[in-house]
Amino acid sequence: MLDKNRLFPAEGAAHVVAARLYEVVRDLPIISPHGHTDPSWFAENKAFPNPTALLIQPDHYIFRMLYSQGVSLESLGIPQVDGKEQADPREVWRIFAKHYYLFRGTPTRLWLDYTLQNQFGLKNRLSMANAEEYYEVIAKKLTTPEFLPRALFDEFKIEVLATTDAAFDDLKWHKQIRESGWKGRVVPTFRPDAVIDAEYIGFKENIQKLGEVADEDVSNWKGYLAALRKRREFFRSLGATATDHGHLTALTADLSLREAEDLYAKIYVGKADAKEVELFQAQMLTEMAGMSVEDGMTMQLHPGSVRNHNKLVYEKFGRDKGADIPSPTEYVRALRPLLDRYGNAPGFTLILFTLDETTFSRELAPLAGHYPALRLGPPWWFHDSPEGMMRFREQATETAGFYNTVGFNDDTRAFLSIPARHDVARRIDCAFLGRLVAEHRLDEDEAFEVVLDLTVNLVRKAYKL
Amino acid sequence: MLDKNRLFPAEGAAHVVAARLYEVVRDLPIISPHGHTDPSWFAENKAFPNPTALLIQPDHYIFRMLYSQGVSLESLGIPQVDGKEQADPREVWRIFAKHYYLFRGTPTRLWLDYTLQNQFGLKNRLSMANAEEYYEVIAKKLTTPEFLPRALFDEFKIEVLATTDAAFDDLKWHKQIRESGWKGRVVPTFRPDAVIDAEYIGFKENIQKLGEVADEDVSNWKGYLAALRKRREFFRSLGATATDHGHLTALTADLSLREAEDLYAKIYVGKADAKEVELFQAQMLTEMAGMSVEDGMTMQLHPGSVRNHNKLVYEKFGRDKGADIPSPTEYVRALRPLLDRYGNAPGFTLILFTLDETTFSRELAPLAGHYPALRLGPPWWFHDSPEGMMRFREQATETAGFYNTVGFNDDTRAFLSIPARHDVARRIDCAFLGRLVAEHRLDEDEAFEVVLDLTVNLVRKAYKL
Amino acid sequence: MLDKNRLFPAEGAAHVVAARLYEVVRDLPIISPHGHTDPSWFAENKAFPNPTALLIQPDHYIFRMLYSQGVSLESLGIPQVDGKEQADPREVWRIFAKHYYLFRGTPTRLWLDYTLQNQFGLKNRLSMANAEEYYEVIAKKLTTPEFLPRALFDEFKIEVLATTDAAFDDLKWHKQIRESGWKGRVVPTFRPDAVIDAEYIGFKENIQKLGEVADEDVSNWKGYLAALRKRREFFRSLGATATDHGHLTALTADLSLREAEDLYAKIYVGKADAKEVELFQAQMLTEMAGMSVEDGMTMQLHPGSVRNHNKLVYEKFGRDKGADIPSPTEYVRALRPLLDRYGNAPGFTLILFTLDETTFSRELAPLAGHYPALRLGPPWWFHDSPEGMMRFREQATETAGFYNTVGFNDDTRAFLSIPARHDVARRIDCAFLGRLVAEHRLDEDEAFEVVLDLTVNLVRKAYKL
Repeated sequence: MLDKNRLFPAEGAAHVVAARLYEVVRDLPIISPHGHTDPSWFAENKAFPNPTALLIQPDHYIFRMLYSQGVSLESLGIPQVDGKEQADPREVWRIFAKHYYLFRGTPTRLWLDYTLQNQFGLKNRLSMANAEEYYEVIAKKLTTPEFLPRALFDEFKIEVLATTDAAFDDLKWHKQIRESGWKGRVVPTFRPDAVIDAEYIGFKENIQKLGEVADEDVSNWKGYLAALRKRREFFRSLGATATDHGHLTALTADLSLREAEDLYAKIYVGKADAKEVELFQAQMLTEMAGMSVEDGMTMQLHPGSVRNHNKLVYEKFGRDKGADIPSPTEYVRALRPLLDRYGNAPGFTLILFTLDETTFSRELAPLAGHYPALRLGPPWWFHDSPEGMMRFREQATETAGFYNTVGFNDDTRAFLSIPARHDVARRIDCAFLGRLVAEHRLDEDEAFEVVLDLTVNLVRKAYKL
Repeated sequence: MLDKNRLFPAEGAAHVVAARLYEVVRDLPIISPHGHTDPSWFAENKAFPNPTALLIQPDHYIFRMLYSQGVSLESLGIPQVDGKEQADPREVWRIFAKHYYLFRGTPTRLWLDYTLQNQFGLKNRLSMANAEEYYEVIAKKLTTPEFLPRALFDEFKIEVLATTDAAFDDLKWHKQIRESGWKGRVVPTFRPDAVIDAEYIGFKENIQKLGEVADEDVSNWKGYLAALRKRREFFRSLGATATDHGHLTALTADLSLREAEDLYAKIYVGKADAKEVELFQAQMLTEMAGMSVEDGMTMQLHPGSVRNHNKLVYEKFGRDKGADIPSPTEYVRALRPLLDRYGNAPGFTLILFTLDETTFSRELAPLAGHYPALRLGPPWWFHDSPEGMMRFREQATETAGFYNTVGFNDDTRAFLSIPARHDVARRIDCAFLGRLVAEHRLDEDEAFEVVLDLTVNLVRKAYKL
Repeated sequence: MLDKNRLFPAEGAAHVVAARLYEVVRDLPIISPHGHTDPSWFAENKAFPNPTALLIQPDHYIFRMLYSQGVSLESLGIPQVDGKEQADPREVWRIFAKHYYLFRGTPTRLWLDYTLQNQFGLKNRLSMANAEEYYEVIAKKLTTPEFLPRALFDEFKIEVLATTDAAFDDLKWHKQIRESGWKGRVVPTFRPDAVIDAEYIGFKENIQKLGEVADEDVSNWKGYLAALRKRREFFRSLGATATDHGHLTALTADLSLREAEDLYAKIYVGKADAKEVELFQAQMLTEMAGMSVEDGMTMQLHPGSVRNHNKLVYEKFGRDKGADIPSPTEYVRALRPLLDRYGNAPGFTLILFTLDETTFSRELAPLAGHYPALRLGPPWWFHDSPEGMMRFREQATETAGFYNTVGFNDDTRAFLSIPARHDVARRIDCAFLGRLVAEHRLDEDEAFEVVLDLTVNLVRKAYKL
């Protein structure tokens, strides 16, 4: 099913060089500095329940495509807000197999084929004919020791895996992993959106939780900042090296202390209007940057996603159901207040992501090709794909170079797709470098250095891993 | 003049696969669900007047390019608003031949060469040297029975051809076609812009006409909607399966009944300001979607064209003179009101087009890859070209897949270019699929299925043809 | 170091055709209608001081990349506003060599390699190992007659070189060149930003200088315009054929005489607010277009750069330090007032540039493919690169054709990079044409005509050189 030359230029010098480069990086360890796997998997090390629960139901790339073609989320057993009954996992698997053709030309298809073949030894394309057999084979393997989370972690050669965790999370699973004596390195990432975005569900309670876990009085600006500082320290004590921020825009602000105090007072009592809610988020990005300058945590910004676009789906199924849609994102003016303060700060790293590819050549590469603090995150979400990754290299490299980028993020909650995703990224980097060498734009000995940098060195450096 | 391998990757596995795929679709019937041909041609079946009137004067792709290089529209015999005298068609043809080099690298050149060679057997490049001879040959052929509209329709293997017609059109030509006994399937498309956009020329009279032909009192909201419902029914009775909407933006609204009534009252008496005119259009898109949910008509949205940009040209020559210019178009927030109501409605199809290619990967593919009601229209107008079509596949497929797209639209008033346009589209789809197969991203047997879907199956399904 | 086939498609028919086309244009003269070289070099014809002062310190492409990776501008000897001491040029050269790997995949690397090999005969990649030797070789050559500015000008086969000069510049170097009897054609370009943008540093003094050199009373609108007219005439008397305008946006306006007078009165006394400052620039673009219609000077518009984005760098090092960042740029509505007046004016040419590549297919090609006055400038600044130039051809050609473009601009203050930059542009045009021919989208005989047009004919025509 998988050709060993997949994703390389099909022929010629670029093909030859790409294949040679890939030999060097194919078996390197996986460094996964940003993602959404569940730390309890590695803490408890229990078997995954069944093929559907493992491969389909947590993966919004999959069910969004099925839904777009009229397959109901109920029939796929996607959990409902009111906890309604779930579908039979075998039946869901059959529905998936029946619609497998929908994924032609998509990265999901590449990842699934890789997983079926390389993790489960299933070498024919998934179809109605083999769906039941495949389900059985996978279900059976999931009960074996080789398929327990920690065994897979080792099998995948994961050197480090970062999860993403709320600011008030007790990180009990991370503690349990550390205390278990298992050598796998799973680290948390500090994600404070739920206590920064006043429109986040449960914001008021979240703030209270933050105050409690940090033992600070969060009814005022000073206490709120102190609480965040303490939590960052707590995260670092469990291995965290980075923070992550998922805002609607990249807007930043640099208010005076007095203005910030007053604004927080309004936010705290729930009296802020939409503009003030946005301004508070803007100010908090700058505050977070300031704390990163202090404590050395790498900062990530993921702006531009209009969340929960489908009202009906949101009301029935809740967040993260494949209905988040990118929108145009501006960086040049938005980031200015933050960059005025910290853009030249030694040791500070802010990694910028985007869902708006037009910004790569227009805004992000020029910014990252100038400010010492800025780096470009890899293609994200919808653009974490062969064409998306190639466009990123083509549009960003000439202005930002390779060395203002930070390697690959799998950014996934689909644990089994991690090796497949890194493999696609490595192949596309090899394909891009192969073309540069074939067109005499880069010497081959340099390409061998660059491909190592793109695979392991830049990510280690940017995330301090 | 035409190489049989044109538009395929020049060599290698991608070339071989593309050529194989093309064999399968080359001779399939043409399904043309959206275009601007004149139904009177097929009703009356009269000979086309002369080469210039057939190939040059109706084609704004051609005369806009000539005009951009200093050739006056007067010298090309483009009809003037005040009815001033026209140019000698032979002289216009000579001017065209003299400037044929301007079209190098453009799709117009590909279409023209195809038409000259395949329809008229003229196998050398048009030039000053052969201009007169070519004119004679074409002029002569146009007088033969083989070149009458219906004969060409059959010769082109057109399975169905949709025209675009105003909401108050009496569709007399469509009736005449039906009553003539001729088997060619020419169907109308319901295009109500002229009674929805209060800034449309003659809007007030248009509304009155609508009321008259529908026999409804359009002085109030209820009667206006009833009139539109009746017209849709009338269009359906003559074979229409789709509506089309050409707005400046993709803005939609979902007003209460009371708000809508009040807004319409202002619109009706011509007292609405610019904001209200825009809001009314926004509301009407949602109303039209609601009617589509009722009556099953597929809805098309073509937003983003700033019409009649050149004041001098508009004043002298009127609409549609090559001076419509695309502008940035936003979909994610704009469509939300409509999608909140009808985005998940069973059986409803809304096909989105764009002149802003940045929206393919950022907004349109993510939307169409989630909402059951949404499909992506093919590259439109300036982007109906080899590079434009390739960018569309490269940017949309990974997120929306192939199955949220709807095949090709020729969208032309240049009847003779229809086979050429479909041929270019088929070749580019084969080229894209050829590359996917050559790079082992799609199996060849699947590519054979997909290319049939892209050529005939998806368009039949999306437009219910 | 330099492969003779670099930048061509690596294999196949496209490669063969590209190489053939390149043979025809490789040795053609360089026509450089827009750039930022210093006319004093050619007036005085003194030796360049040293490798660092020649190749590194004036080139913000180079030091911005070094700065982005933590190399301080102080250590590179970039002049400071307060005139602080400079770095040892040999040490700067060593820093540069040490970080040469940062430029992998960038056009800077291509230009530097070309310069080292073709101008200085240094055929190995710059490295720490050869840095000192290379410095010596270059330093020595710079003292020889062959490396004096005029000798290099001839060696580079420059047919004409345009500089960019403030409206109140006395053009003494240009006069001196003319009077020297040297045959090299160096012409000024009229750039009035500093007397049009009221937020420009020293605006008030600039206006006074303008009044003095033109001997006009610039305290009122009429005198201000008269002064500008006189200066344009003066520039033309020294060979200028073009003006250039670098505004933040492409906004134009068409005020009544009264409105313009009133607005200028506010601008003149420094009482205009931000909106009025912007409106004045908008109005002035239309005024400049009007003067171009009168005097035949070709007009260039370079909008969209947010200048001096890095506050700290700006305060310490001043303008043009690699911290200008592109931002989204709108043309369709912005240019309308100007185009309403002069878009169809015979003999008028307005060349549009952009830093927002999304506008090529959406706005600029449609505009230039219609208005007789409009032409598309080549890829600018960050996009003056192999990928950027290829995207330009791919995105603009199908709508605007080749003949609404104007050849290449090197746009550089790095004199020695001029041959390298033109070479890259020629190679990419050959690569693009080679692919069109290989895919049977253009005949080979036509490609040979087009490549000559792109290299010399279109630029001569557009800039009247």
